[in-house]
Amino acid sequence: MTPEPSPSLWLDPDALGTVTDLYELTMMAGYLAEGMGSKSATFEVFVRRLPPDRSFLVFAGLEQAAHDLARLAFSNEQVEALRRWPAFKGMPPTFFEELRRFRFQGDVFAVPEGTVAFPGETLVRVTAPLPQAQWVETFLLASLGYPTLVASKAARMVLAAGGKPLFEFGARRAHGPQAGLLAARAAYLAGFEATSHVEAARRLNVPCVGTMAHSWVQSFPSEAEAFAAYARVFPESTTLLVDTYDTLEGVRRAAAIAPPSSAIRIDSGDLAALAPQARAILDEAGRGDVRIVASGDLDEYALEKLTAAGAPIDGYGIGTELVTSRDAPALSMVYKLVELDGSGRFKLAPGKKTYPMAKQVYRRRDEAGAFAGDLVARADEPAPAGMEPLLVPVLRGGEPVARRPTLAESRARCRAQLDALPAELKRLRSDATYPVAYSDRLEADAARLMRGA
Amino acid sequence: MTPEPSPSLWLDPDALGTVTDLYELTMMAGYLAEGMGSKSATFEVFVRRLPPDRSFLVFAGLEQAAHDLARLAFSNEQVEALRRWPAFKGMPPTFFEELRRFRFQGDVFAVPEGTVAFPGETLVRVTAPLPQAQWVETFLLASLGYPTLVASKAARMVLAAGGKPLFEFGARRAHGPQAGLLAARAAYLAGFEATSHVEAARRLNVPCVGTMAHSWVQSFPSEAEAFAAYARVFPESTTLLVDTYDTLEGVRRAAAIAPPSSAIRIDSGDLAALAPQARAILDEAGRGDVRIVASGDLDEYALEKLTAAGAPIDGYGIGTELVTSRDAPALSMVYKLVELDGSGRFKLAPGKKTYPMAKQVYRRRDEAGAFAGDLVARADEPAPAGMEPLLVPVLRGGEPVARRPTLAESRARCRAQLDALPAELKRLRSDATYPVAYSDRLEADAARLMRGA
Repeated sequence: MTPEPSPSLWLDPDALGTVTDLYELTMMAGYLAEGMGSKSATFEVFVRRLPPDRSFLVFAGLEQAAHDLARLAFSNEQVEALRRWPAFKGMPPTFFEELRRFRFQGDVFAVPEGTVAFPGETLVRVTAPLPQAQWVETFLLASLGYPTLVASKAARMVLAAGGKPLFEFGARRAHGPQAGLLAARAAYLAGFEATSHVEAARRLNVPCVGTMAHSWVQSFPSEAEAFAAYARVFPESTTLLVDTYDTLEGVRRAAAIAPPSSAIRIDSGDLAALAPQARAILDEAGRGDVRIVASGDLDEYALEKLTAAGAPIDGYGIGTELVTSRDAPALSMVYKLVELDGSGRFKLAPGKKTYPMAKQVYRRRDEAGAFAGDLVARADEPAPAGMEPLLVPVLRGGEPVARRPTLAESRARCRAQLDALPAELKRLRSDATYPVAYSDRLEADAARLMRGA
Repeated sequence: MTPEPSPSLWLDPDALGTVTDLYELTMMAGYLAEGMGSKSATFEVFVRRLPPDRSFLVFAGLEQAAHDLARLAFSNEQVEALRRWPAFKGMPPTFFEELRRFRFQGDVFAVPEGTVAFPGETLVRVTAPLPQAQWVETFLLASLGYPTLVASKAARMVLAAGGKPLFEFGARRAHGPQAGLLAARAAYLAGFEATSHVEAARRLNVPCVGTMAHSWVQSFPSEAEAFAAYARVFPESTTLLVDTYDTLEGVRRAAAIAPPSSAIRIDSGDLAALAPQARAILDEAGRGDVRIVASGDLDEYALEKLTAAGAPIDGYGIGTELVTSRDAPALSMVYKLVELDGSGRFKLAPGKKTYPMAKQVYRRRDEAGAFAGDLVARADEPAPAGMEPLLVPVLRGGEPVARRPTLAESRARCRAQLDALPAELKRLRSDATYPVAYSDRLEADAARLMRGA
């Protein structure tokens, strides 16, 4: 009898080889059994469709994915477990020996993190022996999809906030503790100013911010005593939460008690109405130095309305809507075989047509520097004049290429990319579609394969 | 200059103390600084509202949360980092010494995993010294919310599938690699038959299933050769993916090639139309032994339609819709202070009213054993006659109480709970609301506090 396993579900970064769907491993085994283990395969990651109301994506998650890919492996314990599984019945012992020393040794090209991207564009291109390239599918998609989702949502919020700083407060609502860390990074990359996530801030070396919870206020005999105590302990970083009992009463108390250059936070109610009232109370009390932070299920549409209304809010705490990408919690990001031993591969399943061959994506800018259109072409076509190739080397033979961009560099890249985005695509609901074309050679390749199918 | 941090964002299970919002730590520091470190606090976890179209929740995630809570700690490296943060400026060195040996030593009561629960009902009750109880808020919510979301969605799918087995295929779409593992467990707990997630199956000791990807089919000169090769390597566990090029052509090829008792998978198109056509083709070819598995963005509504249409589908692969809980990717799960040193605490913020005092939840069944109504009462009230208390001890002084339920036991509990759920609440869209009442004493406590506020 197998003992009841430990309830711990934390992943071991040295044994991520089994973070995959079973079929990746059975296909690997099958390729090896069929003598196809040394065929060279190219797979590409792209997004099929934009989620509703989105006009662009911000690509993220690559640095974690690349780091993990370079060390992807099975532990002995995992290999021994797989050996006993019915799914691998009939596999020769050599297969399990192979698993034990299995590593990803492929070449990876990708668009850098922080790049603005569009559906149908190759975001990552993996070239490796077929079993290796197959193995990494699930892991790669699981690593790239969520950060891209959050960075894309965060960028919309940044665009809607009219220059006001945004703080990531979503740790408790992300899909598990690990997701909270990934969300904090993706949000910062896309232009958020700080996070409340202590471990994220520590690991990423980004600013950590915090206020107080209602429980602080409730733990004292009165709101006034709660405010005074906090101001005593943290005179230089006080943000007083004013809505535990009566918001405007809370603001009045805060006006009397808040230390110089502190802030209040409003976490409920009609922010568009409450913020000006709170501002007036503070100003009348001569507390122009006290800032107002707002929070409470804010999304980009709420931010846009508050910005348009000129609400006197100095910063926003953003949680649930961002870290769950609530209106669009999934991305149709796929990993598709496009080339095998030099010949093009594609598929025809309804709504899931793919273009064959290893690809590069080129971007044209207008005279003002704004993005003017992209071209997806074969990687072996001559680069079109005046266009910038977006995919750059990331791993070569499974090893990271040269120096990887820092988070600060990726964040700067994202900001520059958003600046170069045509204005009509920056609107929260836009009918505009960014032009992405396919090269004549790609169209010809696709047509030829289709005729032969 | 701080060196650029490693891109790795994997959490260390021995140092989860910083998986929290900054304010939990500053409030902790504040309580200690104000001499409130030994006050006894009771916080409760509950869900404010059901997501749209939901009639009940299935509680999950407790076993991981309890296991982690019992070992929650800071590493030396983390404490040293916090010491340098501006947020903790002015904290005495004793605070950092305290952090180094900080552990959760509280008492935890909770409803067992797999319990069907409703909004407003206490799911977890934490009693601990105030700083400890505050510390665990973010971690606990991050650990419980997502599994409960997935188990609740999975239960709806199980109810809609008309007894057909469901397979969890969502690893690539979950919010990061860790979330995929949590989702696989929650789905199995709520009645799924198996998962495709290799590491989840290994850790949890649950069945692992797989088919093949389009890339397998594309890797061979023809679909027929791809099918034949797979059947050669895995004659006892073949599922042939038939929609890479032309679905019904694929079914005809599979009928000729599939080994005995194998299956086909259809991953695109109109399943209600394709499944009977595929069944007819297989049956006409004398392949009644070949089962049909369907997949492709299926949710509970799609399952209900296929069930109602009597679609000849023998099992379903479920991914995105389940693991992102796509229609409702967040739960309004909160952790609220209800009692401090024996006196009730509450809050009044608009839409966020809470009941004071430590609570127990009681459930009444009718003569047939069906759930007939719940009562939320003070934990120190006498138990009402004929009702079952739902909260049971989980941790005592920070240590797990006695034997914890196995996953199989929690799964059996969930099944029994769903069996006892009134039929009108099992409908995917129901107007019925399950009756949850508050005891007279609780109402009186709330009214008294409100008058005093």
